[in-house]
Amino acid sequence: MKGEKDLNFADKLIYKIKEMNNPTVMGLDPKLEFIPKFIKEGKFTKYKDVQIATAESIIEFNKGLIDSIADIIPAVKPQLAYYEMYGIEGIRAFKETVKYAKEKGLIVIADAKRNDIGSTSEAYANAFLGETKITDTINEIMFDADALTVNGYLGIDGIKPFIETGKKFGKGIFILVKTSNPSSGQLQDLILEDGRTVYEAMAELVDEWGASDIGTSGYSSVGAVVGATYPEQAKRLRKVMKKTIFLVPGYGAQGGTAKDASNSFNTDGLGAIINASRSLMCAYKSEKWCKDYSDIQYKEACRAEAERMRNDINLALNKEKN
Amino acid sequence: MKGEKDLNFADKLIYKIKEMNNPTVMGLDPKLEFIPKFIKEGKFTKYKDVQIATAESIIEFNKGLIDSIADIIPAVKPQLAYYEMYGIEGIRAFKETVKYAKEKGLIVIADAKRNDIGSTSEAYANAFLGETKITDTINEIMFDADALTVNGYLGIDGIKPFIETGKKFGKGIFILVKTSNPSSGQLQDLILEDGRTVYEAMAELVDEWGASDIGTSGYSSVGAVVGATYPEQAKRLRKVMKKTIFLVPGYGAQGGTAKDASNSFNTDGLGAIINASRSLMCAYKSEKWCKDYSDIQYKEACRAEAERMRNDINLALNKEKN
Repeated sequence: MKGEKDLNFADKLIYKIKEMNNPTVMGLDPKLEFIPKFIKEGKFTKYKDVQIATAESIIEFNKGLIDSIADIIPAVKPQLAYYEMYGIEGIRAFKETVKYAKEKGLIVIADAKRNDIGSTSEAYANAFLGETKITDTINEIMFDADALTVNGYLGIDGIKPFIETGKKFGKGIFILVKTSNPSSGQLQDLILEDGRTVYEAMAELVDEWGASDIGTSGYSSVGAVVGATYPEQAKRLRKVMKKTIFLVPGYGAQGGTAKDASNSFNTDGLGAIINASRSLMCAYKSEKWCKDYSDIQYKEACRAEAERMRNDINLALNKEKN
Repeated sequence: MKGEKDLNFADKLIYKIKEMNNPTVMGLDPKLEFIPKFIKEGKFTKYKDVQIATAESIIEFNKGLIDSIADIIPAVKPQLAYYEMYGIEGIRAFKETVKYAKEKGLIVIADAKRNDIGSTSEAYANAFLGETKITDTINEIMFDADALTVNGYLGIDGIKPFIETGKKFGKGIFILVKTSNPSSGQLQDLILEDGRTVYEAMAELVDEWGASDIGTSGYSSVGAVVGATYPEQAKRLRKVMKKTIFLVPGYGAQGGTAKDASNSFNTDGLGAIINASRSLMCAYKSEKWCKDYSDIQYKEACRAEAERMRNDINLALNKEKN
């Protein structure tokens, strides 16, 4: 009998996006300053160890955010840096977050941008997507995300272990192509002798590498990271990588609009998933809310912003299709 | 009074290399299969939780390796992937390893190849090199390595937080330029319209980014990763990045010779540090040893191989200088 892990990652993600009519993902970057005061006060009173109190604050906050949107957003994207910065307890909070989000039916994209030579990438793939051999009879599952962001600077032998592990466990990857930050062009926009940019060369590699893992949806489990802040580049990349799902950061706080983000979609209205982190996590801080910062309020604020974002993106997509 | 953290990282590393007359670094990539049976049997008997038993095996093995070379090798380079693959307990083993190596006077280079947009790189910098703000009055030190490997694909705003944190805490980074793996050329060797390769363009960026953190040794705390498996490229890069310390993987198991590695040094015999991981960690498995795999033996084997490697590299360097 085929289990869930036999399903292609791209198919799972596309199915979920269609089901919810929502091509967005909630980033979970839980800096302590983003967490409502009442949560932190509770945990720092209960736990004397500040690192444990921090982790428990993150876990409660993330669970609340997940509860608030689990029926309307298909996926979450915890950013590893914001867990690693809180040490081992922070990484425990990451693990708990992944577990909880999956229990609630969400797809989890671990944003870790890992990269290394082949044998070492295999270790990362085991850690985040697969399982780790302990003895001849014992394999342990560690972080068990559904997908991982990776950096392709080392070429195919650093990427292959992620693809192989992905195929085995029904997981996926998103390879950095054109990132959303201001200096992304410093290397990525350099022009090659054949007229392509470095990021276009990376895009062609991603397209080639992903060809072996295309699902019945027509999309590959090898995706690409393409920032919403570079809409013209996204438009060109969409033509190079027809079967690639774009993970699109940079909407909202970083300046990308729904119109910008819409360039990352195919004409079928699919093929991209737009991330927002702070605008959802910190929605409760906005002027619109009365700032009693209660348990109910930060969740309601997050859900309201998630609905606004979904409608914003869908509206831009329909406009694009006209 | 100036504390150790006021010293420039490059100065600390160059001083230590000169003091020991040894430009090498021991990689600590503790796959369970590398660890002597007697250690694992002991820990798996004592601890019923296999993940704890794994972590305790790694910690004992690493401590033994560190003890065996602490007076002859200036630095160690734990590779994060081989800790993350063992989950949270594995990361605890990483943290214990860093702490122990520093207590023994070794410089610790965390090989994590982290990379992200600015605000997120800052979180990684806090995690590995600096400290993390918990409240207005509490900052916590998390992993506290002396240096971190990073990937420069995102350009300066993903690198700057590492450099700034490095300056503040006397830490350093090594940016991937030309990696040691077979497919490194797939992106890195592409030719730009101005005739440079992508890795040469990255090298020039590294040289530029490192200019603000040059110590009294004349070297920058912003180093580069340049594989020993591409000696001709290393020779060209040495000319582009005169003040950059090269971290050189690929010697030994990956096929790079001492002669190959010697291309990464300046004519002063400095400016590079050559890594070996498996050849040191698994020296006890070689034919030369009688394979009783005792506590003393794996340490003696590691030390003997460390001395052989040091002499091999130094011999090649003297030959180069003639």
